[in-house]
Parts: sequence; structure tokens; C-alpha cells
Amino acid sequence: MQLADFKTIASDYKVIFFDAFGVLKNSEGILPGIEKTFNWLRENGKEFYVLTNDASRGPRELAESYYRQGFYAITPERIISSGMLAREYLDLKVHDGTVAYLGTEKSAHYLETSGLKTLPISQVDLKEIDDINALVLLDDEGFDWNTDLTKTVNLLRRRNIPVIVANTDATYPVSKNRIAIAIGAVAKMIEGIVGKQFIRFGKPDAQLFMFAYERLENVSHVSKRDILMVGDTLKTDILGGNKFGLDTVLVLTGNTQPQDVEVQIRSTGIIPTYVCKSVVIK
Amino acid sequence: MQLADFKTIASDYKVIFFDAFGVLKNSEGILPGIEKTFNWLRENGKEFYVLTNDASRGPRELAESYYRQGFYAITPERIISSGMLAREYLDLKVHDGTVAYLGTEKSAHYLETSGLKTLPISQVDLKEIDDINALVLLDDEGFDWNTDLTKTVNLLRRRNIPVIVANTDATYPVSKNRIAIAIGAVAKMIEGIVGKQFIRFGKPDAQLFMFAYERLENVSHVSKRDILMVGDTLKTDILGGNKFGLDTVLVLTGNTQPQDVEVQIRSTGIIPTYVCKSVVIK
Amino acid sequence: MQLADFKTIASDYKVIFFDAFGVLKNSEGILPGIEKTFNWLRENGKEFYVLTNDASRGPRELAESYYRQGFYAITPERIISSGMLAREYLDLKVHDGTVAYLGTEKSAHYLETSGLKTLPISQVDLKEIDDINALVLLDDEGFDWNTDLTKTVNLLRRRNIPVIVANTDATYPVSKNRIAIAIGAVAKMIEGIVGKQFIRFGKPDAQLFMFAYERLENVSHVSKRDILMVGDTLKTDILGGNKFGLDTVLVLTGNTQPQDVEVQIRSTGIIPTYVCKSVVIK
Amino acid sequence: MQLADFKTIASDYKVIFFDAFGVLKNSEGILPGIEKTFNWLRENGKEFYVLTNDASRGPRELAESYYRQGFYAITPERIISSGMLAREYLDLKVHDGTVAYLGTEKSAHYLETSGLKTLPISQVDLKEIDDINALVLLDDEGFDWNTDLTKTVNLLRRRNIPVIVANTDATYPVSKNRIAIAIGAVAKMIEGIVGKQFIRFGKPDAQLFMFAYERLENVSHVSKRDILMVGDTLKTDILGGNKFGLDTVLVLTGNTQPQDVEVQIRSTGIIPTYVCKSVVIK
Repeated sequence: MQLADFKTIASDYKVIFFDAFGVLKNSEGILPGIEKTFNWLRENGKEFYVLTNDASRGPRELAESYYRQGFYAITPERIISSGMLAREYLDLKVHDGTVAYLGTEKSAHYLETSGLKTLPISQVDLKEIDDINALVLLDDEGFDWNTDLTKTVNLLRRRNIPVIVANTDATYPVSKNRIAIAIGAVAKMIEGIVGKQFIRFGKPDAQLFMFAYERLENVSHVSKRDILMVGDTLKTDILGGNKFGLDTVLVLTGNTQPQDVEVQIRSTGIIPTYVCKSVVIK
Repeated sequence: MQLADFKTIASDYKVIFFDAFGVLKNSEGILPGIEKTFNWLRENGKEFYVLTNDASRGPRELAESYYRQGFYAITPERIISSGMLAREYLDLKVHDGTVAYLGTEKSAHYLETSGLKTLPISQVDLKEIDDINALVLLDDEGFDWNTDLTKTVNLLRRRNIPVIVANTDATYPVSKNRIAIAIGAVAKMIEGIVGKQFIRFGKPDAQLFMFAYERLENVSHVSKRDILMVGDTLKTDILGGNKFGLDTVLVLTGNTQPQDVEVQIRSTGIIPTYVCKSVVIK
Repeated sequence: MQLADFKTIASDYKVIFFDAFGVLKNSEGILPGIEKTFNWLRENGKEFYVLTNDASRGPRELAESYYRQGFYAITPERIISSGMLAREYLDLKVHDGTVAYLGTEKSAHYLETSGLKTLPISQVDLKEIDDINALVLLDDEGFDWNTDLTKTVNLLRRRNIPVIVANTDATYPVSKNRIAIAIGAVAKMIEGIVGKQFIRFGKPDAQLFMFAYERLENVSHVSKRDILMVGDTLKTDILGGNKFGLDTVLVLTGNTQPQDVEVQIRSTGIIPTYVCKSVVIK
Repeated sequence: MQLADFKTIASDYKVIFFDAFGVLKNSEGILPGIEKTFNWLRENGKEFYVLTNDASRGPRELAESYYRQGFYAITPERIISSGMLAREYLDLKVHDGTVAYLGTEKSAHYLETSGLKTLPISQVDLKEIDDINALVLLDDEGFDWNTDLTKTVNLLRRRNIPVIVANTDATYPVSKNRIAIAIGAVAKMIEGIVGKQFIRFGKPDAQLFMFAYERLENVSHVSKRDILMVGDTLKTDILGGNKFGLDTVLVLTGNTQPQDVEVQIRSTGIIPTYVCKSVVIK
């Protein structure tokens, strides 16, 4: 496996799309030296966006998590999250009533739009559900798995409403050696039980890329050939980037271990344009 | 849909295999009048067995739950449970060390066999797992879903051990209108996350039928043609019975509603030999 | 199930997206009276596009099939097909070499872009495949199923190349009572055998909707609220339209039978905004 | 990966179950030297059976294919094939009418039992199908894939009949470097299209093991602890053997390459008791 140099590659593109977790940060915080990469991007007039399967907070709160670590390059308008797609869906498709959710209050707060009330599943009374017009799966925290998952199943047996999955990831890392079950895996279990088709937002689905691409069109004249997608996961970042027509870089600072790269590319058939050790430049 | 009379049909067979939940009992207890059916079976020299996807207790405790309701026909040796298959597997295939489990203490108690220690996932220390040689998923109760499911995933990332699913059901009814998520659905979620192949016991798998069939062979001379399988669920009882070569009866006292029978048979392609309203006889 | 009147509904939108098969035409040709609908659209200043999971021909040939039946409203630039997405993918992501394909010569002809040769699987020599840089599944005709499917599997075992599925449908109707297996079902079989991740274009995927939406943006100022998606299939047209944020109409002139509508909406959880008998207006 | 010596291991068991393809023979014929293994078995009083997912011929014809290569140890009564399970199913569950099939005449010939006519799909007239009471998928040869697969789908849309898959394998090797699509993969495609539940016979399913085990019980007094299952494929031979409670040997003369063993065992979680290079003994 030939490793390429990130700066050399990035030089050939006008815009870079970054995945967040495993690329810019990991379970210990932002990658040391990452600010050099963003200085270089700014000095060389490169646009960038962060595309993240994260619906636990709004773009403002996501940006603040970088600020708190002394990293100021990633501002809210640079962040495109699957939560934003969930919100757009509710805006366009759910006109009244209550939106039930699994997740933290913070994640639901971001969803609230004019006219829609949100209600955590824990507070749903199964005898009074006529007003509930959608269910959103936002985050694996903020509810009691022992009771609220079964309650969700019973809600969906009685109300035929759209179910939105705002984060399709099955797991996320919580330390160097441990992972946690994410809401995407829970969503798949519940979907299997109730036998209905949920609506999923997040990579590899094209809609997240489109959201970023549309924003770009307002700023400058770029084509898909000018955009480079950078991610640590073949099945989301690279598959999604490839399918959208972008060149792609797989980095080895997250989900994909250096010793597994070749086997994984061969066994999945998901082929990044380049493989780089990291986006951090010397 | 032509409904048949259970007694008339059962007259033609020497042995009846009954599913338990939805056939002999429901969320409110044993079906009223069920003792008449078992009196008739006894008077007419019919053998019977109860085949159940239940690993929450051993056969003795399962039988006691009938005794407590004043129903004495179902003795422990008449009960074949998926938990018994899980125990046989451990007996034959796991020779030493500790068996970790998700479930109640009662369910694990039944599993304990000479030489094997059992340990609930809640008490597993992820830093000391070299001794854990198998994992068994027994019951949806007895653990904290918020923490123990993620712990299970992390155990399976570090130890490549057999995982036994002792109850394949995805849900079970808790009242007339509510269901709960069963350990079978949880097992499927975890299997998807870790990407490994779990070992499942329970209908429709042939092994549960075989277990009952072998027991029969010791008692009397019967062939598969002499056995009638009775169940309330197409995808477990009827599919499994059909595949094993038995004639099958679908009853309408459990999972399958009278108004849905025809659509479900047509859409699944799982065709019972007969459909009866109930096993209760007048 | 309350049926709505198509004209009344369409009046409230600026743009209509139509599925083709089952909406505008069926196995016997275009629906009688359909020209009245398109006259009404023109007189009332409604824009429209036809979104079709058809990669068997280019937009020009697709339009000609309407002309031949004396129907001139649907011009090539009104047609958005999954084959166009496949071509864009090849343009952007495959820079040289040969593209192998399953399909007719006509379907491949449309794919040919500067610098790319196309080669039917039947003519591939498995000993000389170093030059093959992509495989496209276009159509269920134009090859010998007895030999070319196995040949495709062997090609993919030796070359780790992107595989593009340009039509995701599993079947299509060939007469009132018969269907045929479409290339989408074949693609799923081969994907399962080789264990790799294929790249699929077509409804319900967002990319086809996006292609039409982008074209619209050049013409007039419309938002997603102004667009109505009309289709005969819940799992492709309606699911895709809903997810993209559009209001949707299910019509009963194709895949979905009047007597099944309610059951299917309930069992899939895919809920159209409206249900109409047909797009043909009186 | 520590390789064990087959003779040393086999010494500890009374009965050996062998998979056929990849263990006793490969695409070039029976493994050179295999007769030494069977001489040793005979001299040491070991029983053996051959368990094969092959429904293309009856046990007699399967045995003859060994005889023709000068190898006489494997007699018809030593062979347990998935085709035998299919025949038992038809015997027990289909009492009259015609059985339609996909496969060669030879494979169907074996299926014919008193009272049942067999009819290749190619000769089915879709207008006269009231008499067809089952469909069996036997072999990938003997029919025209271009026409008969679609015909099969149309038959199953009109007749709600049991569908038996007598060989679950997805592929089989035809030379050192090439494989062919087997009827198991075709079955999965058709099952997906018609949305019904087919009945599958063959490893890893317990029923094939049970068939061999029952035959054993008539011969000698053995328990599951006395039986060793030998196969070249984790997902069929080893998974099935493990689940049935047998000790298992993975050999490296077929589907599993020496360099992939460790990765495959780790990634699938299917763990053979032993790994041996081959069953051929020195």
C-alpha cells in the first residue's frame, strides 16, 4: 500500500470535505498539529467543510467543542451534520403536532422549529399519542434503554408515522480500546422489529454531500472535480464520496488500522483514490 | 379461510407438539378450558410435548408456572426449551473457564454444568477476560441495557468466543396491547455490530424439533407422519414444523389475528396444514 | 382510504416530478388520455420532469419511445434517468481503460464518454482483464445469463474495481399478469456472492432527485415545497420523494393495487402525502 | 496458527463426518493419496459418513463418481446429501400433484417418489399450474437461465406452494481459479423477489447432521462426543458441526486458503476445534 502525502494531494483541489471523528479529532480530543493543516488551507485559498454523522448537537455547539480546545478554524457555517438534514426533513414534511425523540434534550433543542413541539420518549404517554406525527432517533444518550426502547416499539405499532434516523453510525469510539453502541444500531434493531422503513440521514447517503455542495455553489464556482473528500471509514466517508463523484482520501487516524487497509479495500470493493497516514502536515 | 376443529384433526395423530405462548397461555395466564384439551389427550392415549423458545428458566421452573395456576398436565419432562439446547451446547463444546451471560440469575442457574462457572456481564471486568470461553444470551431481563450491551460488544471485540442465542424471538407480548423487546432482537443487533456469526437455538431451527423427536423415540414407535405441530406463529412454529416434515396447525389465540391469516400465509409462503381457532375443545 | 383528485392537488405546486412506468405508461403503452394531463400542465405553467430507473437507453431514445406513440410532451431534456447518473460517475471517477458491462449495446452506447471503451462481458477474455477499470450493470437483456453471470463473478474476484448498478429495480412488468427479473435483482445476487459493495443509482436514492432539482434551479426559482413527486411504487418513488423533502402522490395505475394500498402503507411505514387513482385528468 | 495432524486427531473419535468437495476431492478429482486415509479408518474401526450439499444426483450416482476414479471406500449408504432431505420433505409433506423443478433430469429422477410427477420449469405452461404443489431448486444446470428464472418467479406469484432449496451453496469451484454460481445463490435472488420464505436443506442446518446421526444410532452406540466433523468451509461445515455439538476440523484443501485462516476465524467468530492441512495421511 503506497501512502500519499496529504498536502501534495490537497494542492490539486479547491475544496476539501473532512469527516470529523477519526480525521480531525479522536476520543482524546483534536489531533495535535491539526491547526497547521488549516493554516495551510487558509493560506492557499482552499475552501473546506466538515461533514459529520452527528445529530447530538447543532452546528453552533459542534463548533464550540473545537473552540474549547483552542481550535478556531471550524466555524458553525463550515459544519454540515446529519442533524441538519433531519431538521430540514421536519421543516418540509411535518407541519404540526409533536415530534417524539430518543436522545438528549440538547439534541432535540436544535430540532425545534416553528410550530413543532418535541417530546422525549420517556415522557410519552402511550394512551395519548394521536398528536405525535414523527419520531426522530438522535443520540444514544438521554434516555433509559431498559424502558424507552420497548416504549418506542409500542408507539410505532400504534402510530404509522415517519421515523427519522439522524445518525446512521452503529458505534463510536469512547477510548483507545473501547467503543459504544450508537443510535444507528438501535435504529436498525427497532426497524427490524416493527418491519417498517425508516428514513436515514448521514454518510454514505448522497444527501449530506449535496447539502455541502449546494452551500459551495453559492460561494464560488466549483465542480465535483475540484472537491476532495477525506475520511477514516470506507463504508461511510469513502463510499459516499466516491458515489457522489468526488476523489477520496482514506486516512489512518481513526477507524481503519494501517495493517488492515489493503484487506479491507479488497474485501469491500470500496476503493479510495488515495490513502494518507493523516491530514496533519509537517 | 376454512377453520378446522382441533379435536377432529388431533384424532388422526399419535403425538402433539405444542408451542406454549399464544397456544396454551397468553399474557393473562393459561387459556380458560385448556385442561379439557389435555384430559382428552390423556383419555385418547395421545403423547404430547411443549416446544418453547424460552431460556429464561429450566423445565422444572417452566412446569411450576403451570402448576401455580392449577394446571398439572405439563410436567418438566414434557417441556423442550431452547435453553436446553444451549445447555447441551455448553456441555459438549465448552470444556472449561467461565461462561458470561446476559439474563437473570435464574436463567443462568439452569445453565451451570459441572466445571463451568457463569458470570453476568455486569460483573465482567473487561481487563480480566482471558478466562471467558463463551457468551450466552438468555433473557432480556437481569441486566442494565444502558451499560451492559456496550460492555458485551467490547467483550466480543477482544475475545473470539462462541456466542449462543438461547431465545431467537424478537418480541413477546406483555399485555393485550403491548409487546416487549426480547433477547433475540438484541442478539441480532450485537451480531451486526461485531460482524460475527452467533449460534441460535429455537424454532424454526430443526434442532428443537429433533430434541423432542429423539425423546419420543425412546417412548414409543412413531414416525414424523404421526406428529402434529401446533403453534400461533408462522415464522417459527409452522415454518419449523413444516421443514421438519410434520403436519402443522396454526391457531388464532396468539400472534396471528383471524383477519390477517390469509394475507400472512400468502405473503410469507408459509402454509400450515390446518388453521384452527384454538386448541381449547368444547 | 380517501382518494384525491390529481388536478386539484397538482394545482398547488409549480413543478411535478413523474415516475414513468406505472404512471405515464404501462406494458401496453402510454396511458390513454395522458396528453390531457400534459396539456393542462402546459396551460397552467407547470414545469415537469420524468425521473426513471431506466438505464437501457439514453434520454433521446427514451423520449423517442413516447414520440412513436404520438405523444410529444416528453422531450429528452425532461428526462432524468439512473443511466445518466451512471454516466456522470464514469465521467468523474474512471479516467482510462475499459468499462465492462452487462446490458444491450444500445445501453452501453449511451455510456461511452471520451477516452472510455466499453466491452460486453461476453467479449471479456478473463486472461486479459488488467485494462478493465469498472463494471456497469445496465440491463437484463443483451447477454447470455447461462454464461455471463458466472463470468462476471470471476471477473470481480480478480479485479477490485468499482461496480455500478444503473437500475435498482428488481422486476418490471411485461404484460398485465407477468413480470420479468430486472438487472437490480441480478446485481444484488452478484454483490452477495462477491461480498463487495456496489454503487447503486436510482430511486429511492437522493441523487436522482438532486439531478432533477439542480436542473430546475437553472430554470426558475423553486424550493422543495413547490415540487410534487408522483409515483406508483412506495419503496422507490414515494420513499425517495419523502426523504428528499417533497410532497408525494401515490397513483394506482401500476405496481400498487387499489385493494392493497392501505395494508402496504401501514406495513411499510412509507406514507404518501396523497393517493390518486391516476394522473389522467377528465 | 498451529496446524494439527489429522491422523492424530482422528484417533480420538469413533466416527468421522466428511464434507466432500474441498475435503475428499476438488475440481481435478479425488485428492491423491486419499485412499490411505480410508484404509486407516477401516483398519482402526472408524465409522464415517460423507455429508454433502449436493442435490444434483442421488447417493448411488454420487458414489459412482468415486468408483469411476478407482476409489471404492465411499458406498451409497455412506453418503448423506441435501437432496435426500428434499426427498424426505416431499415424501412427508406433498401428497399429490406435480413437483416443478430447476435442475437436470438426473437430479429430478432421484426425487420421484410414489405418486409425485416431476416437471422441469421449461415445460411448465403458466396457464395450467393448478396441479403444481411444490417447487424444488436442485441444480444450476439443466435449464435456460434467460427464460426459466423469470418463469419461476411468475409461477410463484400465482401459486402459493412450498419452495425447497436442496443445495444452499452460493458457488462451487470449476477449476483452480474459477467458480460458478450455484443454485443456492439463485434461490436467494428469487426468494428476495417473491418475498416468501423458502425451505432450505444443507449445511450448516442441523437437519443434515441429524440425518447422519440417526443412521449412526442404528449401527453402534455413539454419542456426539465421539464424532468429528471435517470440512473446508467455516460457514457451512464448521458452523453446522459446532452447532450440532460436534468437534470440528477445518482443512485447507478447499475453500479456505492457508494465509486467510486466522483472519477468517477471527472475523466470522466461527472457531474450528482443530485446523489441519489435509485429511490425506502420510
